[in-house]
Amino acid sequence: MSISNTDNKTELSATDLTVPANNDIMRVREFLVDLQARICQALEAQERDGGGNATFVPDDWERPEGGGGRSCVLADGEVIEKAGVMFSHIHVHNLPASATARHPHIAGRKAQAMGVSLVVHPKNPNVPTSHANVRLFVAEAEGEDPIWWFGGGFDLTPFYPVLADCVHWHQVCHDLCAPFGDSVYPDFKQWCDEYFHLRHRDEQRGIGGLFYDDVNTESRGWDFETCFNFMKAVGNGYLDGIMPIFEQRKDTPYTEAQREFQLYRRGRYVEYNLVYDRGTLFGLQSNGRIESILVSMPPLASWHYRFEPTEGSPEFALTDFYLKPRDWLTLYV
Amino acid sequence: MSISNTDNKTELSATDLTVPANNDIMRVREFLVDLQARICQALEAQERDGGGNATFVPDDWERPEGGGGRSCVLADGEVIEKAGVMFSHIHVHNLPASATARHPHIAGRKAQAMGVSLVVHPKNPNVPTSHANVRLFVAEAEGEDPIWWFGGGFDLTPFYPVLADCVHWHQVCHDLCAPFGDSVYPDFKQWCDEYFHLRHRDEQRGIGGLFYDDVNTESRGWDFETCFNFMKAVGNGYLDGIMPIFEQRKDTPYTEAQREFQLYRRGRYVEYNLVYDRGTLFGLQSNGRIESILVSMPPLASWHYRFEPTEGSPEFALTDFYLKPRDWLTLYV
Repeated sequence: MSISNTDNKTELSATDLTVPANNDIMRVREFLVDLQARICQALEAQERDGGGNATFVPDDWERPEGGGGRSCVLADGEVIEKAGVMFSHIHVHNLPASATARHPHIAGRKAQAMGVSLVVHPKNPNVPTSHANVRLFVAEAEGEDPIWWFGGGFDLTPFYPVLADCVHWHQVCHDLCAPFGDSVYPDFKQWCDEYFHLRHRDEQRGIGGLFYDDVNTESRGWDFETCFNFMKAVGNGYLDGIMPIFEQRKDTPYTEAQREFQLYRRGRYVEYNLVYDRGTLFGLQSNGRIESILVSMPPLASWHYRFEPTEGSPEFALTDFYLKPRDWLTLYV
Repeated sequence: MSISNTDNKTELSATDLTVPANNDIMRVREFLVDLQARICQALEAQERDGGGNATFVPDDWERPEGGGGRSCVLADGEVIEKAGVMFSHIHVHNLPASATARHPHIAGRKAQAMGVSLVVHPKNPNVPTSHANVRLFVAEAEGEDPIWWFGGGFDLTPFYPVLADCVHWHQVCHDLCAPFGDSVYPDFKQWCDEYFHLRHRDEQRGIGGLFYDDVNTESRGWDFETCFNFMKAVGNGYLDGIMPIFEQRKDTPYTEAQREFQLYRRGRYVEYNLVYDRGTLFGLQSNGRIESILVSMPPLASWHYRFEPTEGSPEFALTDFYLKPRDWLTLYV
C-alpha cells in the first residue's frame, strides 16, 4: 500500500500513478461484490441473533444503456426493519454535461461508475440508523488518460445515542484513516459534518463519520492503489463501526413512546434524503432506478407539528447535544 | 363582480383596474381569516360526526421582519389524522431577487403576501387527502403602481377513489370557474395536472383539480375585484368539493391492508412535497417557518421496496387508471 505518495511518485511513472488498467477496475468490482455479500451476511447474523429470520433478497437488474446491479433488500425483520445493500456498475456512453458540473471537460466521454451503497433502519430505537457508500468513477477517452476518482464514507444517525457508541464510531473512523495521513480523519470528518447538515432545521442528520469525494492523484496525491486501499478501509470500517453497536443495543428494551420518537426522527432522514442528498437528487433527475435510489427511505416515518421534547429528556439531549458537530474523540467516556 | 373585463375597462381608469387600495388588501385579509375559520369548523364537524372530539389548536406567530400568521392544526382525530389550516400575512422590506425570478424588475421592493393554505390527511383510506391554497401577492414602490397577482387552487389525492367522487370534484371545479370564462376550467385544470406530476415516478399526485398563479390584469385581463372573486370561488369551492366526500366515505369500513396501502401512498405525498412543491422548497430555502411549511407532511408514511399491486386490484387501478391526467367530466357515472 503506497500511502506516502511523495515517496512513490519518484519511483512510478505518471501513467502508473494515474491510469487504472481495466484489471484494476475489475479488482475494485470484485472487492465491492464481496463487500456487499459480507455486509449482508453480518446483518443477517444480527437478525438471527435477535430471534428473527428475515434475510436479504437479491434483485438483479440491468440498465438499457449498459451495466446494472444487484439490490439486496431485507424487510420486516425482528432486528432490522428495513435494509438495502446495493451494488451497481453502470456504463455511460456519452456523459451528459449535467453529470459532470465539476468536471466540464469530460462531458461526452465514455464512463463507468461502480459502488456499494447501503442504508440500515433497525427496528429498536436504541440502534442507530446507518449509511455507507463507496464508489469509483472512471471516464475514458480515445488516446487520452482516463479521469478517475473515488468517493464514499459512512455516517450514523442515532435516536437514543450512547456517548460510548459515538466515541467508538469516530474512533473507528480515526483509526482507519490514520495510515493514510494525519489530516485524513479531521478533513473527511468535517466534510461529513458539512454534508449531512439539514440547513432548514439547522441540525446535523446524525453524529457524522466520514465523507469524501473526488479523491485521486490530483486532489489528494494518492495513486489508484492508495485510493483503492482507502475504499477497502472505509468499506470494512463500516462493519467495524456498526457491528458492536448492534450487538450491544439491539436487545435494549424500549417503550412505545421511544418507538414513536424514532419514527418522528426518521422524518428528518426523509427530509435530508429528498431535499439535500446529492446522490438521491441526481438519481431522481437522471432517470435512475427509482426503487434502488429510494430504498434508503425508512419503512415508516412520522411528522408532528411543533414537537418539542421536554428539557432534560433523552429526546431533548439528541438535538441539544448530539446533533451538533463535535470533536468526539476528545470526549472521554 | 366584473368578469368581462373588456367591458369594464372602458368605464374605469387604468389605476382603478390595476392598483389595489390598502382597503382592498384588508378585504382580502378579512375573507382569508374568515375562510380559515369556516374550513376549520367544517372539518371539526366531520370529526364530531365521526365520533371524534379532536379540535383545531390555533397557534399565532409573528415574523421578525414583519407580519405573521395563525396556524391551526388538528391532530390524532378519529376522522382526521392530521390537518393544518394556515393563514399568513407576511411583510417583506426588500424583495430578494431569488423570490422574484419571474419578475426581476420588482427585486428590492416592499411587498406583502397573504394566503390560506391547508392539507388534510384523513385516517380512513377511503377519504382522500386534500390540499387547497389561495394567495395574494402585492409589491409596492414609491411613486409607482403596485404589482399584484393572485394564485391558488386545490387538488385531491385519493387512495381508494370512487369514480363518482372524482367526477363530483371536477364538476365543482368546472362550475366555480364557469362565470369567469369558458377557458378557465380547462386551463387551470391542465395547469394542476402539470404541476402535481411526480416526474421521477411518472405519476400524478392525485386526480388534480385547479392550479393558477400570477393571475392579474396583465395575464388574464381580470381586474383586482374579479381576481378576488375568483379567490373566493376557489376558497369556498374547496368546501363544496371535499365535504360531500367526507360525508359519504368517512364511515366506509377498511382493512389493515388498506391502511398500509394508504401509508405507502402517503410516501408519494412526501416525495412530491419535498422534491417538487415550489411553495415548500421556497420556504425551506428562504428561512420560512419550518413547522408551518412542513405541516403538510403526513402524520405517518411508509416506503416499501418494489411494491407492485396485483393486476386488477383496487391498488392497481389507482395508478393504472386514476393517477393519469383525464377529462373527468366526460366520464359518466
